[in-house]
Amino acid sequence: MINMEPKHFLCAVNDGVATISLDHPERKNPLSFDSYAELRDWFRALVYCEDVKAVVFAPNGGNFSSGGDVHDIIGPLTRMSMKELLEFTRMTGDLVKAIVNCGKPVIAAIDGVCVGAGAIIAMASDLRIATPEAKTAFLFTRVGLAGCDMGACAILPRIIGQGRAAELLYTGRSMSAEEGANWGFHNKVVPADKLLEEAQAWAVRIVAGPNFGHMMTKTMLAQEWSMSIEQAIEAEAQAQAICMQTADFTRAYEAFVNKEKPLFEGN
Amino acid sequence: MINMEPKHFLCAVNDGVATISLDHPERKNPLSFDSYAELRDWFRALVYCEDVKAVVFAPNGGNFSSGGDVHDIIGPLTRMSMKELLEFTRMTGDLVKAIVNCGKPVIAAIDGVCVGAGAIIAMASDLRIATPEAKTAFLFTRVGLAGCDMGACAILPRIIGQGRAAELLYTGRSMSAEEGANWGFHNKVVPADKLLEEAQAWAVRIVAGPNFGHMMTKTMLAQEWSMSIEQAIEAEAQAQAICMQTADFTRAYEAFVNKEKPLFEGN
Amino acid sequence: MINMEPKHFLCAVNDGVATISLDHPERKNPLSFDSYAELRDWFRALVYCEDVKAVVFAPNGGNFSSGGDVHDIIGPLTRMSMKELLEFTRMTGDLVKAIVNCGKPVIAAIDGVCVGAGAIIAMASDLRIATPEAKTAFLFTRVGLAGCDMGACAILPRIIGQGRAAELLYTGRSMSAEEGANWGFHNKVVPADKLLEEAQAWAVRIVAGPNFGHMMTKTMLAQEWSMSIEQAIEAEAQAQAICMQTADFTRAYEAFVNKEKPLFEGN
Repeated sequence: MINMEPKHFLCAVNDGVATISLDHPERKNPLSFDSYAELRDWFRALVYCEDVKAVVFAPNGGNFSSGGDVHDIIGPLTRMSMKELLEFTRMTGDLVKAIVNCGKPVIAAIDGVCVGAGAIIAMASDLRIATPEAKTAFLFTRVGLAGCDMGACAILPRIIGQGRAAELLYTGRSMSAEEGANWGFHNKVVPADKLLEEAQAWAVRIVAGPNFGHMMTKTMLAQEWSMSIEQAIEAEAQAQAICMQTADFTRAYEAFVNKEKPLFEGN
Repeated sequence: MINMEPKHFLCAVNDGVATISLDHPERKNPLSFDSYAELRDWFRALVYCEDVKAVVFAPNGGNFSSGGDVHDIIGPLTRMSMKELLEFTRMTGDLVKAIVNCGKPVIAAIDGVCVGAGAIIAMASDLRIATPEAKTAFLFTRVGLAGCDMGACAILPRIIGQGRAAELLYTGRSMSAEEGANWGFHNKVVPADKLLEEAQAWAVRIVAGPNFGHMMTKTMLAQEWSMSIEQAIEAEAQAQAICMQTADFTRAYEAFVNKEKPLFEGN
Repeated sequence: MINMEPKHFLCAVNDGVATISLDHPERKNPLSFDSYAELRDWFRALVYCEDVKAVVFAPNGGNFSSGGDVHDIIGPLTRMSMKELLEFTRMTGDLVKAIVNCGKPVIAAIDGVCVGAGAIIAMASDLRIATPEAKTAFLFTRVGLAGCDMGACAILPRIIGQGRAAELLYTGRSMSAEEGANWGFHNKVVPADKLLEEAQAWAVRIVAGPNFGHMMTKTMLAQEWSMSIEQAIEAEAQAQAICMQTADFTRAYEAFVNKEKPLFEGN
């Protein structure tokens, strides 16, 4: 069901890790209506794809993404009806929902320009590794819009705190790689020539783990977002009881008893 | 509708920025029943005030605020009935609600003593700039009360994290300016003689942006507080679609095409 | 009602502070079915216990806890029915609920190994003091399970942020003491030979405060978890109005007027 040869972005799969990136590095990899829609469909199909167990969202030509293209997207939006506008904002939001709900850990590998919808994709990923040159900006305010785009007012505060999120969303200023690391946005900063290697190594390590469990971790990190503590604890009691009936749990136990390294199979 | 000459606090408006501060610097600017009520009414009226697009909540005489006055407020409270007490705690809570719902970014400029209800006003602001001498304490525990005052148990953990918030609320100890910056409470620390200038410069930069969009950013930062991720994304799809029909969005696009700086008008 | 001589963990009470720790330091203090259940019952009974006003959860023999014992717990779990598994995961979740709802501040004093359910107990505590040697790992993924155990996907992100929590939960890696302090997990790091002394000193200082107020702070920190800002502010207006009718509030006011240090009695 999943298209491993997408038309509007790049995709390669190795060892269960799909490395994808936006195209058109000469324009710093802007999003278009087509790439938005195709990415949304791809992440939706990923739920049912057994061959891919983790995703690295990579830069291309030294930049992550310049966000929605000014000529291809912003121009047309200024001429749309409300019905059309809502179709567009729901499509972009659906991409975030699809990333959050795809069941596979997504690692953003961020270099250079990472702005607008590009910053949102990084934010919606599970983990973020950056280069010292990464500049991440939620610059919707600079194009006359609000900071509330594709979930930013809900998700960004949970990653870096309400005060820092407010600053980035009101001013549209760039967050440096160093700030990102200090604030918990970036999980690690590595030199540009090590970025892809590092992100893929993280992905490979995660893929070697219990992938059914990882799916449940990802599901519950989103699912418990607005639950009470009591609801969250009950939800986890159910989710973890399900995981305790997987063979991976038995495999881990038997490997421990036999003083071996467990080999997980994701079931 | 808004009173630009309030009786119980100071107020001056320049270039769309209202700079307000509590009065009585000789007592480190305590709050009184009257200033609480007048501030609440002022922030409520701010929603409909076109002349003010951002607020700087400034210190006075080297201190931000010493909080509810011991003689004017705490003494009377010890003698009140439950009905009267709840009227008071609801009034103070209504001030926080009014700040959160006023639709204009509020920048707290914090110097010296910033404690009790003063710390709450800083917390309820969108952005916080401090001097190295700023000492912020949620010291309700020191007057025999709980840390749950005016929304602190909900808002403070979202800014600095649950563990650090718990420490400040259980112990009532001062958070230093350096801690505040490291923890995400303060957006910036500047010398005392630059504080007002810096806070007003931030306000002026924000005011030069799309103020309809800023209102929506502020609205959604509060509105999505307890939404699920899915609900938040749908809420933002709607909110941003509304912003895409403002002239500011078109102005930004046209300025970009013409390689000019956009001039926003807040509509 | 509370058992001060538990069978499956250690307990000593001094000056209103209960210092408890897991037993079997030769195995780094694993949890067993029995110690889980007894801890759950103990924290539930703590609500009604006037003699204990704060808890220090201490290490034993240089380690905090190795979590659920592989032989005593994990082995049997691999052979259980779903009904039995859910009984187990609900019992472990009930321990977290009991810690959260016990009404008394809990300070985790963390040294050495603090992993699995041990890391969860630290996370569920109100405050955390660690030694430089503390290694905290949410290593459920290493035993083939998901990171969503006993509330981790809800609680950990609120303490250290969503991105850092995701990293710890997907990889199961150790968080160092330094990371814990920088990220807001640890409130303080002290040398191992000062750990217990420091944690108990914090507890004694808290106990000397208004304990009815502290109970309300703890209650509201959990209660407001998934409320809207408006709901949280109204909830605090009610909670603080209750606290304003305690004698501790009057004691604090009178002590201030008389220039004395208030003596709180928790009523």
